[in-house]
Amino acid sequence: MIRSPSVNSARLQADLAELAEFRDPDQPGWTRTVFSAPYLRSREWVAGRMRDAGLDVKRDAAGNLVGTLPGSLPALVTGSHTDTVPGGGRFDGPVGVLGAIEVGRCIRESGRALHHELRVVDFLGEEPNDFGLSCIGSRAIAGTLTSEHLASRDGSGRTLAEAIASAGGDPLRIGGAAWAGGIGAYVELHIEQGPVLEEAGIPLGIVSGIAGIERLQATFTGQAGHAGTTPMAARHDALSAAAEAVLAVERLASAGGVGTTGRLEVLRGAANVVPGKAEMWAEFRSIDGGWLDERRARFEQSAAEAGSRRGVSASVRRLSRTEPVVASEEVMSAMTKAIGGLGLGFVSLPSGAGHDAVQMARLGPVGMLFVPSAGGRSHCPEEWTAPEHIEAGAAALLGTLLVLDAR
Amino acid sequence: MIRSPSVNSARLQADLAELAEFRDPDQPGWTRTVFSAPYLRSREWVAGRMRDAGLDVKRDAAGNLVGTLPGSLPALVTGSHTDTVPGGGRFDGPVGVLGAIEVGRCIRESGRALHHELRVVDFLGEEPNDFGLSCIGSRAIAGTLTSEHLASRDGSGRTLAEAIASAGGDPLRIGGAAWAGGIGAYVELHIEQGPVLEEAGIPLGIVSGIAGIERLQATFTGQAGHAGTTPMAARHDALSAAAEAVLAVERLASAGGVGTTGRLEVLRGAANVVPGKAEMWAEFRSIDGGWLDERRARFEQSAAEAGSRRGVSASVRRLSRTEPVVASEEVMSAMTKAIGGLGLGFVSLPSGAGHDAVQMARLGPVGMLFVPSAGGRSHCPEEWTAPEHIEAGAAALLGTLLVLDAR
Repeated sequence: MIRSPSVNSARLQADLAELAEFRDPDQPGWTRTVFSAPYLRSREWVAGRMRDAGLDVKRDAAGNLVGTLPGSLPALVTGSHTDTVPGGGRFDGPVGVLGAIEVGRCIRESGRALHHELRVVDFLGEEPNDFGLSCIGSRAIAGTLTSEHLASRDGSGRTLAEAIASAGGDPLRIGGAAWAGGIGAYVELHIEQGPVLEEAGIPLGIVSGIAGIERLQATFTGQAGHAGTTPMAARHDALSAAAEAVLAVERLASAGGVGTTGRLEVLRGAANVVPGKAEMWAEFRSIDGGWLDERRARFEQSAAEAGSRRGVSASVRRLSRTEPVVASEEVMSAMTKAIGGLGLGFVSLPSGAGHDAVQMARLGPVGMLFVPSAGGRSHCPEEWTAPEHIEAGAAALLGTLLVLDAR
Repeated sequence: MIRSPSVNSARLQADLAELAEFRDPDQPGWTRTVFSAPYLRSREWVAGRMRDAGLDVKRDAAGNLVGTLPGSLPALVTGSHTDTVPGGGRFDGPVGVLGAIEVGRCIRESGRALHHELRVVDFLGEEPNDFGLSCIGSRAIAGTLTSEHLASRDGSGRTLAEAIASAGGDPLRIGGAAWAGGIGAYVELHIEQGPVLEEAGIPLGIVSGIAGIERLQATFTGQAGHAGTTPMAARHDALSAAAEAVLAVERLASAGGVGTTGRLEVLRGAANVVPGKAEMWAEFRSIDGGWLDERRARFEQSAAEAGSRRGVSASVRRLSRTEPVVASEEVMSAMTKAIGGLGLGFVSLPSGAGHDAVQMARLGPVGMLFVPSAGGRSHCPEEWTAPEHIEAGAAALLGTLLVLDAR
């Protein structure tokens, strides 16, 4: 008998609680960084949950866990990651992996056969890590993981290739992890990591796009001087110039995206020395690539003006640029239909954070579902999403995949 | 036969060159920090130069070297310090000590007997050091070195008392280093450490006063947030608030004194995190105590406004306050007369840097003579004062003491 599949919230919550137990006891919060002992142990458990759900499980050459239900049409893919930042929480990533396993389990239990193959993925290492490379596993699947990436080293001198081998991967065959032939669609369930859904009092978000990121470093070089004996008019104060540039980042991001100066350092700063050198790290994010270009140009101009007013040289360097990803109209429309069927509300919103979906967009249409984050908090022990919101997200994910499969 | 004493520039230059040889070879520039092995060795040499000049030399309980020529009236005191900052230069301090020895030597050689006793002092440790206490020796002489000071520890855990003992002092008898009964006058020759004299093309400065210092620390506490997912309007960005306060320090110091933010730290700063906490260290200097009070109040107001605009709490703490010292009219008038007798020009200017003279002002009238610093540079290997300017300074010091002695 074929039943209409529906998610089991209690079972999903039990999985989330069990996964959370895999953590570094010497670190605050729920710390399960990629390649750590708790992470490696947790993924054996994740593979077991996939198998118990009836999926055919394989670990690919990049260390990704891929659980499959058969189907003859191009794969519908869903998943996320189970690694955390140091001192992180229980929901960023796990909701998407365990939600996807629950969805696969529901479909299997319902006895329904899909037209499309279903792939549930626990991507290796999505978070920033000691190798300076996020989205390791999804890059490998998208074919964008380079030999330069594999040769990068962490603080202990270990290469990323060696680390991937320690996680059960096969770095010499990493090219085989790339998926040839594209996919039907990729749908990822994730916590919002921001305050928009909670403040709107709405349980679900359909992600319109994933912001691109323009990362910049500005170096201000003036002249160090005695804080008591250098008259104000004779100063070349690098910190004052940098402070003006910090305010420019804030001002330039007043509409159309966000802008942040996350780091600022005064070189050889001392209370009684006029700063001779200051460095700042800033970024702009937007789903509009043109906006990013314009902010970069205007920031460069602001930094130069802040410097020249003080006889301080300003040099701005682009650290990286990630292009925005626009969500697929087809996937968003399937989400709308599925959420309507559940009788729930949603808002459409951009994602300011990067996700494995950015890499998966190279293989086919992508979309993301967001569930609320309490207080907008994420990457901290206080990270929290209510069980009913996780249930709504998993139900919307299931519904979306079924709508896509029916097309 | 009694000759008119006059300074010997070649001899003074030779002394400066010889003292500069006592330095830490593993550090840049001329590094002779207080209590270091080169410093301890150099002071044996300084004591020897005092003795060779005909002074009666004693090391007091605080480790100060005091060389005396007899006289029946209250002491005319001159001197400075021979310790340096790490990576410092050859002139900040040594010009005043070796200039004073040269002056004592000239008076001795001339056969002239002074009405006043003459004391030439090499004060222990004037520069900032690992104990966080500058002007150690002059504080002891002024009677302001406390048992709390003596109990302070450097990075290795050694107390200041132990360090003073290592420099030949006797910390248990430190009270005996304080001079009872006051002094006739204190006159210090020092490099300007700023650009005023050089830019005016004038070899001598008569210091009108020594700036007081108001040292403040401001802590901005907002909320850390994800740089991609926290909308601009929902942020509590501690660094942006601090940046506005840095610009307030600069703006508030546009007239009447100087203001500097020498240090700024973003706590747990990362490129992709909205800063939750930032700290800054600022100071204002002026020879007008009322100006300092007003700047402190206006800075507190600016910091609070910068914070409240962003939902960031701002707390401003006073780290220290040093009151301005006004130079003695009598000493300045003696300097004017002496410099006029040399046929040289001078300007009157405040000292933005602190000096041992600040402590000596507790014992009697003080004054300082400045000689030019090339490019206004100090506390660096490039520190430079031309030999003819040092000669002019020593001659003015000699002349000033003779005028004061004749009164």
